[in-house]
Amino acid sequence: MDQIASPAPRPFPAGFADALAARFGPACQMGEAVRAQHGASESHFPTVLPDAVVFAASTADVVDCVNLCREAGVAIVPYGAGTSLEGHTLPLAGGISLDLTRMDAVVEVNQTDFDCTVQPGIRREALNAHLRDTGLFFPIDPGANATIGGMAATRASGTNAVRYGTMREAVLGLEVVTSQGKVIRTGRRARKSAAGYDLTRLYIGSEGTLGIITGITLRLHPVPEAIMAATCPFDSLEGAVETVVQAFHCGVPMARIELLDAMQVRAVNLRAKLGLTEAPTLFFEFHGSPHGVAEQVETVKALAASNGGGDFQWSPRAEDRTRLWRARHEAYYAAVALRPNAIGWTSDVCVPMSRLAQCIVETRADLDRSIVPATIVGHVGDGNFHAIFSIDPTAPHEMDEVAEINRRMVARALAMDGTCTGEHGIGIGKQTMLVDELGEDAVDVMRALKQALDPQNLFNPGKIFSA
Amino acid sequence: MDQIASPAPRPFPAGFADALAARFGPACQMGEAVRAQHGASESHFPTVLPDAVVFAASTADVVDCVNLCREAGVAIVPYGAGTSLEGHTLPLAGGISLDLTRMDAVVEVNQTDFDCTVQPGIRREALNAHLRDTGLFFPIDPGANATIGGMAATRASGTNAVRYGTMREAVLGLEVVTSQGKVIRTGRRARKSAAGYDLTRLYIGSEGTLGIITGITLRLHPVPEAIMAATCPFDSLEGAVETVVQAFHCGVPMARIELLDAMQVRAVNLRAKLGLTEAPTLFFEFHGSPHGVAEQVETVKALAASNGGGDFQWSPRAEDRTRLWRARHEAYYAAVALRPNAIGWTSDVCVPMSRLAQCIVETRADLDRSIVPATIVGHVGDGNFHAIFSIDPTAPHEMDEVAEINRRMVARALAMDGTCTGEHGIGIGKQTMLVDELGEDAVDVMRALKQALDPQNLFNPGKIFSA
Repeated sequence: MDQIASPAPRPFPAGFADALAARFGPACQMGEAVRAQHGASESHFPTVLPDAVVFAASTADVVDCVNLCREAGVAIVPYGAGTSLEGHTLPLAGGISLDLTRMDAVVEVNQTDFDCTVQPGIRREALNAHLRDTGLFFPIDPGANATIGGMAATRASGTNAVRYGTMREAVLGLEVVTSQGKVIRTGRRARKSAAGYDLTRLYIGSEGTLGIITGITLRLHPVPEAIMAATCPFDSLEGAVETVVQAFHCGVPMARIELLDAMQVRAVNLRAKLGLTEAPTLFFEFHGSPHGVAEQVETVKALAASNGGGDFQWSPRAEDRTRLWRARHEAYYAAVALRPNAIGWTSDVCVPMSRLAQCIVETRADLDRSIVPATIVGHVGDGNFHAIFSIDPTAPHEMDEVAEINRRMVARALAMDGTCTGEHGIGIGKQTMLVDELGEDAVDVMRALKQALDPQNLFNPGKIFSA
Repeated sequence: MDQIASPAPRPFPAGFADALAARFGPACQMGEAVRAQHGASESHFPTVLPDAVVFAASTADVVDCVNLCREAGVAIVPYGAGTSLEGHTLPLAGGISLDLTRMDAVVEVNQTDFDCTVQPGIRREALNAHLRDTGLFFPIDPGANATIGGMAATRASGTNAVRYGTMREAVLGLEVVTSQGKVIRTGRRARKSAAGYDLTRLYIGSEGTLGIITGITLRLHPVPEAIMAATCPFDSLEGAVETVVQAFHCGVPMARIELLDAMQVRAVNLRAKLGLTEAPTLFFEFHGSPHGVAEQVETVKALAASNGGGDFQWSPRAEDRTRLWRARHEAYYAAVALRPNAIGWTSDVCVPMSRLAQCIVETRADLDRSIVPATIVGHVGDGNFHAIFSIDPTAPHEMDEVAEINRRMVARALAMDGTCTGEHGIGIGKQTMLVDELGEDAVDVMRALKQALDPQNLFNPGKIFSA
């Protein structure tokens, strides 16, 4: 992990706790358990406790919390499902963890326009359950059952991004509470707009540092007429990746194309009893008209066969597909569980397609030299992949070793004109890598934006860059 | 036109003209003709002369120009093809028109990764000519043969956006010269990234007000296996728009779907001798596999037939398609030429699909009540359409009347949860409408961003909002 100087904790000023209690009553909690829950990381970062947790039930609650905090100089970290992987929700400067999960309403669904507006605390599975009878679905799927607000704040992506894009493409507009306590709307329901600066995209991926997202208008997609899912084992990682690259070149509009290396297949077999061959494996999903899907399948089968692919194992029924993708989604927990009581650490990079095979093969070779078990899994249709480490918490040198491997993995991706993170974000863990990627001058532009929109550094201080 | 207080012209400080001449020699020009060319608007805005035109040949030229201007407090307006429609290139505060058309190189094409990097001054048709033998193409097509830098700066869109997205989706990363004279790179060649604030999207659509774009890395697309283009006349505007809405609901992945009203068809017939029936007409283009295109065509033909559509007229050969789309692209000039010596004014709005028919029909009725001839033409697959007015410059009340119609058209779109501009941008003409759309607090956020990145208001002052 990068050694980042955490801002010093700021004790509550006199009277602030009373003001919070007066305004929020039982929606403000200071008990150890709830603070510990909001201060824990899904990944390898040590817990950092907030001083209080405020459960917002409305935009007005958020505004009042922001105003109280601004007047008192207390930090606020927005909190959703807590599933981010780079320590985004850790309150490095203490203060308030602002829990938005009670704001979980679907405000409206416009079936004719393929859009909906939701509050930030709804989770993506709940949203799709709500949409079930509309013929529409929300495709962005980072694996974790994250909140839509958290997904917007981290520019989430995942298995469907190769076909449907990331949160950058999925969001039509946001409602945001600024550090001045103003409620702004960044866009309307038109499918495109050239009306001024793209505030929507500025807040997407800002990791809670520029404003608090309190409403999201999303593009939805029609449930495809035909869906086919399959797995296919390969002789080698290269063969699997080459199949993906060639499918990309053939313009096959795959909905999902996911790589699991042999160790990751072993891990999901152990957890989900899939009984797959323990070899580098692609998980596919094809969406389209029956004709179109049949065309896609034929093309990909031919490509796989010419790259050392084995038999396709089909998941014809919806429940088989659900089981398959659940196993894929739980890849992180499955990989960490390869050792009992292990701590997880996952890193992600994304490179141009032409460099993907080399980047994955070199990374796998680096992992093979380590004593720390690690798997590779990736959204390879985008050039994006992850290493997942299963670390013994009683062996401190393992953490250092993983940090070194992570540095090499990112350096390898950057040397290939890739990015230090395709979807996990910067958070605490990749701040020096962000500078390596874009340069100090570009990060200074980001600092200037932060200073302009949050001059007191109230919102999620210490994330993305040191202030 | 909005009544915007133009910043007062700033005379060159002593010695500045000499410093420019010393640095740029003949690449700095102060003659009346070249200044008039750079101070003219493609649309209805009065000419505003820059004090000098600097022709940049490199990023280093841009940096030196920015540094000289910053030290002297002189404004800079970046200039490409000059085809923008909301007065973006007019130097309201005088100063330098920075012509980037000599920076027109294709820096690299990565055929395997479907991307390329270009300088800002290359025009989109030249880029596609350069790409001809690669099997790839750059799809964004706003009609005008604009520069790629200008298209990025205005978040351009156009006929192919329904399938391929706008400049927002097309750009992987930018090279930008900041007001401090720093050269930053906002992204690399990975297809997605979560590395910090989305600076790429912040500069896209910033209309030259936040930085000077000196390099653009673009996503390209494979030339489709099969392309079919056709036109189809309709009994009514409603029927044509309903066909588009229903095709959208059926998930038909049309590459282009353009509406021309009857008067616009008359105009393109006069200019391009297409011989089309003078009725509301859709221009279609379908891309895909031969099977896929056949499927799309069958679906759309059935929808058109059930909505009062007539016979499809096909353009089977590439040269027929070129003629068809050239006619579409020249719609603006054709519409303005409906009256001799007329001035053109075009406005654009974009609304949710469910409101599109009503918005177009009401707008057409409003146009029909006016003495100023006007056509409607639109990228209706996105909910985006334009009114094009042909104004008698000797009749000043016509300009006032068009301003009123434009106000009503925007108000109508905003009432339908649409945007005041789908693709033309804010520039000079839509500043009060931007406030109507997003509110003063959101525009204040934009002002704060401008202040942070360009504290001296050097870059294209007076655009998007008053400073």
